Amino acid sequence: MKLDDLTTPAALIDLTRMQHNISRMQSQVNHLGAKFRPHVKTSKCLEVTAAQIEAGAAGITVSTLKEAEQFFAAGIADIVYAVGIIPSKLKHVHALIQKGCDLKILTDSVTSAQAISEFGLAHGLTFKVLIEIDTDDHRSGIKPESQQLLDVAAALKLPGAQIAGVLTHAGSSYDLNTHDALVSMAEQERSLCVRAANRLRTAGFSCETVSVGSTPTALSAEHLDGVTEVRAGVYVFFDLVMHNVGVCAFDEIALSVLTTVIGHQEEKGWAIVDAGWMAMSRDRGTQKQGTDFGYGLVCQLDGTPLSDFVVTGANQEHGIISSPGHPKIKISQILPIGTQLRILPNHACATGAQFPQYQALDAQGHVQTWDRFYGW
Amino acid sequence: MKLDDLTTPAALIDLTRMQHNISRMQSQVNHLGAKFRPHVKTSKCLEVTAAQIEAGAAGITVSTLKEAEQFFAAGIADIVYAVGIIPSKLKHVHALIQKGCDLKILTDSVTSAQAISEFGLAHGLTFKVLIEIDTDDHRSGIKPESQQLLDVAAALKLPGAQIAGVLTHAGSSYDLNTHDALVSMAEQERSLCVRAANRLRTAGFSCETVSVGSTPTALSAEHLDGVTEVRAGVYVFFDLVMHNVGVCAFDEIALSVLTTVIGHQEEKGWAIVDAGWMAMSRDRGTQKQGTDFGYGLVCQLDGTPLSDFVVTGANQEHGIISSPGHPKIKISQILPIGTQLRILPNHACATGAQFPQYQALDAQGHVQTWDRFYGW
Repeated sequence: MKLDDLTTPAALIDLTRMQHNISRMQSQVNHLGAKFRPHVKTSKCLEVTAAQIEAGAAGITVSTLKEAEQFFAAGIADIVYAVGIIPSKLKHVHALIQKGCDLKILTDSVTSAQAISEFGLAHGLTFKVLIEIDTDDHRSGIKPESQQLLDVAAALKLPGAQIAGVLTHAGSSYDLNTHDALVSMAEQERSLCVRAANRLRTAGFSCETVSVGSTPTALSAEHLDGVTEVRAGVYVFFDLVMHNVGVCAFDEIALSVLTTVIGHQEEKGWAIVDAGWMAMSRDRGTQKQGTDFGYGLVCQLDGTPLSDFVVTGANQEHGIISSPGHPKIKISQILPIGTQLRILPNHACATGAQFPQYQALDAQGHVQTWDRFYGW
Repeated sequence: MKLDDLTTPAALIDLTRMQHNISRMQSQVNHLGAKFRPHVKTSKCLEVTAAQIEAGAAGITVSTLKEAEQFFAAGIADIVYAVGIIPSKLKHVHALIQKGCDLKILTDSVTSAQAISEFGLAHGLTFKVLIEIDTDDHRSGIKPESQQLLDVAAALKLPGAQIAGVLTHAGSSYDLNTHDALVSMAEQERSLCVRAANRLRTAGFSCETVSVGSTPTALSAEHLDGVTEVRAGVYVFFDLVMHNVGVCAFDEIALSVLTTVIGHQEEKGWAIVDAGWMAMSRDRGTQKQGTDFGYGLVCQLDGTPLSDFVVTGANQEHGIISSPGHPKIKISQILPIGTQLRILPNHACATGAQFPQYQALDAQGHVQTWDRFYGW
């Protein structure tokens, strides 16, 4: 199959770029002396994940139990479920562990830690539990210096539960845009997570795993002393948000939406395409960044940006393409009806999620269809 | 099945509210003397659409050929594909028509009109084509007074194509928020679409169908003289954007996301829930409206709003719930871990699209699972 055979909109993976991204991250983490555990929530695709494993990844990170199920069924057993567990989901976790899945769970709450220990005791298994650390005041997790850290550790009691280690995610790195700030955030993420691990050890608890990561910090860390593993997700495709953060170039963005021009509003300089927000997602992550790319940056079919054309508006199945610098351009001559374009997305995780399949394009122009799943 | 049996996040339909919404719209359009053709892009669900047909809808509107395929396979033949057709999609349209689907297509372009006529001639069928009219300077379509209207009509030549009528969508009604402005926009949509139809007739073209609609204008129109059919989609569920436009109350919003509290940041007054943007969608439609509901308005399990709690932040699988008026509230006492909540969405079309199934809750508390589809 070739590009011409695809109906639009379609989610296109540029395999050359994807392999470059996978190699780049794996080399970086290898160089820093940690294991790499990719977050598969970005792709939710077996073929993409297989390429990450092939390049040297050690296990995977998931954001839902459905991801754990799907990837375990495909033969990957070493899985970290990196969203705080609630007691009502322990039954599902238990079922996966009973089937042989080496599934680690996460908590930052004494209530949940007690429930985990009790469930494990009652059902004759020992959950491996990571304690979530808050290293950047961003979302979930326990402050490394807090009493709560020791309280949660104490509530994880054998035989129902054992402390597998600590885990953090410096999500606020997405708000940065200079190399120095990223290096500093990576060091903050590392040092505070290691500090939490050392506090646990000093207090007599075991703490084998020290897991850190986000795409920007993983690519910016200068050393990872005391860290055992790094997690990152969106690097596999990259996107315009990551471009604005400063960790990728346009020609490293491996995911795009293939679309076709369906009409024009000549006097406004608009081309209408069949990629609306249902294809691009509603993610407007670049809105608050230095350069706002609307709903996406328009590229020619070969993947090179088309001047300063962006998707300036989106309805469900209509995208509006225009050039902010050239509002009075003769749009129907430049982009006649039927023209195929690629749109680079703001956020690869959100855009990929709109599609049941990826169309994987190799360097020879051949296209393979790869399934992705969704839901919970 | 009951609410307690559901894993979260889940897309919940309150069937009492949905039936109320269906009756309300059907009665309104009946009263105005037009046929009603619901837009099924909102639900992409056979059971929801069956309820609309049962209430009196005459045919459906779709936004993709996949929707046309799925609903035709389920026995609905009278379908309008209300996105401008491109020549490369005519083969797919042809295949559906050959199977017996009474599929009408849409164009606003001379280029496409010529391609439609030529394809029909070459393949021995007569496409039924609606001409798209721009009545509010919003997106696609031809201005009613333009020469282009007559040029497109002239390019739709028998035997390959016939003019089925004119169609418009006053999407800019979503930007309004007073009854008077909505009444005025409904009249503008009606009068300009009827004007286009009359210009075609005066020029000697047939123009049987005069199709108008959007949820806000359909509910606000005072008369529909000259209109044959009305289209609307989101009314079936409503959402917070429609609430801000002024066409529904909170207790008419039939779609919500069932979620569970998974953690807290006590000092910030945050509860973390398992409905992030993957569940809510990235739609922030209320951001530019009079009341910004973040990623959604938090309700108790029975569907009544919980003070002024909204989803103030969202990552992929984490939502952050807080109360702007009460930042220092003791959140873990009010919303302990495990608490189930319903979140009303900004935009029902976008939120529904994140889920493979709806959970349809009836007045007796019983839940049925209804599939929905996605993709193209």
